[in-house]
Amino acid sequence: MAQVKLVQDADASPEVKAVFDDIRTTRNTDYVNNIWRALAANPPLLKRFWGQMKEVMVRQSRIDPLAKEFIYLAVSITNNCEYCINSHIAAARNKGMDDQTLAELVEIVALANAGNRLTQGLQVEVDERFKPGLG
Amino acid sequence: MAQVKLVQDADASPEVKAVFDDIRTTRNTDYVNNIWRALAANPPLLKRFWGQMKEVMVRQSRIDPLAKEFIYLAVSITNNCEYCINSHIAAARNKGMDDQTLAELVEIVALANAGNRLTQGLQVEVDERFKPGLG
Amino acid sequence: MAQVKLVQDADASPEVKAVFDDIRTTRNTDYVNNIWRALAANPPLLKRFWGQMKEVMVRQSRIDPLAKEFIYLAVSITNNCEYCINSHIAAARNKGMDDQTLAELVEIVALANAGNRLTQGLQVEVDERFKPGLG
Amino acid sequence: MAQVKLVQDADASPEVKAVFDDIRTTRNTDYVNNIWRALAANPPLLKRFWGQMKEVMVRQSRIDPLAKEFIYLAVSITNNCEYCINSHIAAARNKGMDDQTLAELVEIVALANAGNRLTQGLQVEVDERFKPGLG
Amino acid sequence: MAQVKLVQDADASPEVKAVFDDIRTTRNTDYVNNIWRALAANPPLLKRFWGQMKEVMVRQSRIDPLAKEFIYLAVSITNNCEYCINSHIAAARNKGMDDQTLAELVEIVALANAGNRLTQGLQVEVDERFKPGLG
Amino acid sequence: MAQVKLVQDADASPEVKAVFDDIRTTRNTDYVNNIWRALAANPPLLKRFWGQMKEVMVRQSRIDPLAKEFIYLAVSITNNCEYCINSHIAAARNKGMDDQTLAELVEIVALANAGNRLTQGLQVEVDERFKPGLG
Repeated sequence: MAQVKLVQDADASPEVKAVFDDIRTTRNTDYVNNIWRALAANPPLLKRFWGQMKEVMVRQSRIDPLAKEFIYLAVSITNNCEYCINSHIAAARNKGMDDQTLAELVEIVALANAGNRLTQGLQVEVDERFKPGLG
Repeated sequence: MAQVKLVQDADASPEVKAVFDDIRTTRNTDYVNNIWRALAANPPLLKRFWGQMKEVMVRQSRIDPLAKEFIYLAVSITNNCEYCINSHIAAARNKGMDDQTLAELVEIVALANAGNRLTQGLQVEVDERFKPGLG
Repeated sequence: MAQVKLVQDADASPEVKAVFDDIRTTRNTDYVNNIWRALAANPPLLKRFWGQMKEVMVRQSRIDPLAKEFIYLAVSITNNCEYCINSHIAAARNKGMDDQTLAELVEIVALANAGNRLTQGLQVEVDERFKPGLG
Repeated sequence: MAQVKLVQDADASPEVKAVFDDIRTTRNTDYVNNIWRALAANPPLLKRFWGQMKEVMVRQSRIDPLAKEFIYLAVSITNNCEYCINSHIAAARNKGMDDQTLAELVEIVALANAGNRLTQGLQVEVDERFKPGLG
Repeated sequence: MAQVKLVQDADASPEVKAVFDDIRTTRNTDYVNNIWRALAANPPLLKRFWGQMKEVMVRQSRIDPLAKEFIYLAVSITNNCEYCINSHIAAARNKGMDDQTLAELVEIVALANAGNRLTQGLQVEVDERFKPGLG
Repeated sequence: MAQVKLVQDADASPEVKAVFDDIRTTRNTDYVNNIWRALAANPPLLKRFWGQMKEVMVRQSRIDPLAKEFIYLAVSITNNCEYCINSHIAAARNKGMDDQTLAELVEIVALANAGNRLTQGLQVEVDERFKPGLG
């Protein structure tokens, strides 16, 4: 029910094909999932978003790969993005998340959403000591 | 500008005092921050929320303490809760987060919010292989 | 810091003046608050939004006036609208809400936000019996 | 699976029939879509919401009809309203939006969501020059 | 399509069975709905969330049971949680909500969401008299 | 009160300086606003986000520059990002938006938020004819 045609390998332009190949190599899988095939309807958009995803989620950095997936999932659950929740749960499972850890993650997300609303509902002001005084 | 009076130590009932003491012991600090003083306007609510926070964020589990803060922050940034962002950045700094790591976290949160909207805007369907087939 | 000039009584056109008068009569107060003075920068918008507010929030109906404020507040807290939270807490207090009730309201809002995320995070499907089968 | 019965033409009261007729005339189509049939379960609500929709989206004003659809879509994508995304993409296509333009719109929406979170995550203060000093 | 196995009665541990029994007794029904069966994948989480739900939604307090459902629904509609909307509409119908009242509730939720955005879009400042001056 | 130091010109590395210069040239102004100075705490992030902003918002495309600002604003108002609302209202004013147009924009955003909640609250299903049948 996507709003754009999902581009299949047979229909991919060389530009799109190059991104699909990079996805396959980077993720060590033959499978290219739907979001990339949808973005391929607009090759420069595909290239930009995959470039960011690779740079931010794959590149080695101070946050480890599984923690990155937790962060991505926390956002996706809060925004209720069904595609993103399911695809990033799959990604997190690939990086070692089991059912017990998923339940823990979901409970932290629920607690944070609750805490956010308690604070906003009572209009609690930021403690002086939490203000960094920068800027 | 809170909508309820922040309960100071001198005005705390024994029930509230017990929670404040537990916060101090658990966090190894003398400082009790504003959200707890606001919730203290309703002692059972204070007790319940602190109980959850301790159980979920402090109890040892499969997700390490700093990753828990990342998850809490990802939600708070997405919900734009100023109090929660500032207080949990402080908590995360206490657990070792530096400026570089904060910038990485914020970029992952931004990317996930972007990815959520790309997927929703194009109405991409969940790949069959991401559906667990449970339930 | 509003992005439009707040229209004062002295500067109000007859069209705006008529709405301000209706606000004063309907609410039995001399005070016209900032949102109405901001909307007055665009008189037809002022008229439309006040018309809806009066029709939905003031008109007698199956939901009592205080419950209406609870619903309005639940939305405003979830959306984190500072202006709306503060002005509708004031309105609810005028209709009898005390601090204890405010704390109860805020806890229900927090619980619902938590429950929403638990359900979404685990991707739980709607029970057959909850589907009305209409449409 | 709607929570109220969708009112069909044969079951429409004269009040509801009048709104359906106005929708058909205004939009130059015979088709009345589901949201209006659902709202018809409550005729005054149907009348009010259609009145606003016509006034805001159809009435000639400073923002052209296609730009209005872009704005409506930007909100609906950010709120992840599946019905609204699909129906307003259809409306925008009727006003000339092609696949390329849809992809551009979605990327702007994604970028804005990312920019919002970057700014909130770093708690950047509004520049003095962006504060209009009104109010 | 849940991401965890829904625990059936036959597979329930004594700990889980005790919660299911309490749900049945408290709600005076034999039916245990999917969210509880999903949470049962993690018994302590099940116990904690049911404990909160019972304490906040069932315990007698200043807000009556139907108004509590209105508040829960207002949040769930704003967050667009399909499961929560459908299950809490069912709960509210059990407590006396009819179609007319549902339509009223939904219109208040829509109005509040509109009002929140009008206020934010024009960046209207909180009136001095709405600031409680506490904290 | 930003959580990172705002980088001033005197403290800018050559990499950061190059981005600041490009912002100045592209926007034809000497002023570099706070978000860029905050992102400069992490030069590669600054470079990536400015690159996207320039590519998406400045590059000539099918959506005209003022409509792009409307879309960005619709998202920012819905997410309630104070910084983004104020800075992009300033940008839109530079591109010709007057107070009347701002009021129109804000009313469309409010209407869309209301429409989203009406649809979700009644759980209206997407009309068959709005489903593109792609994918």
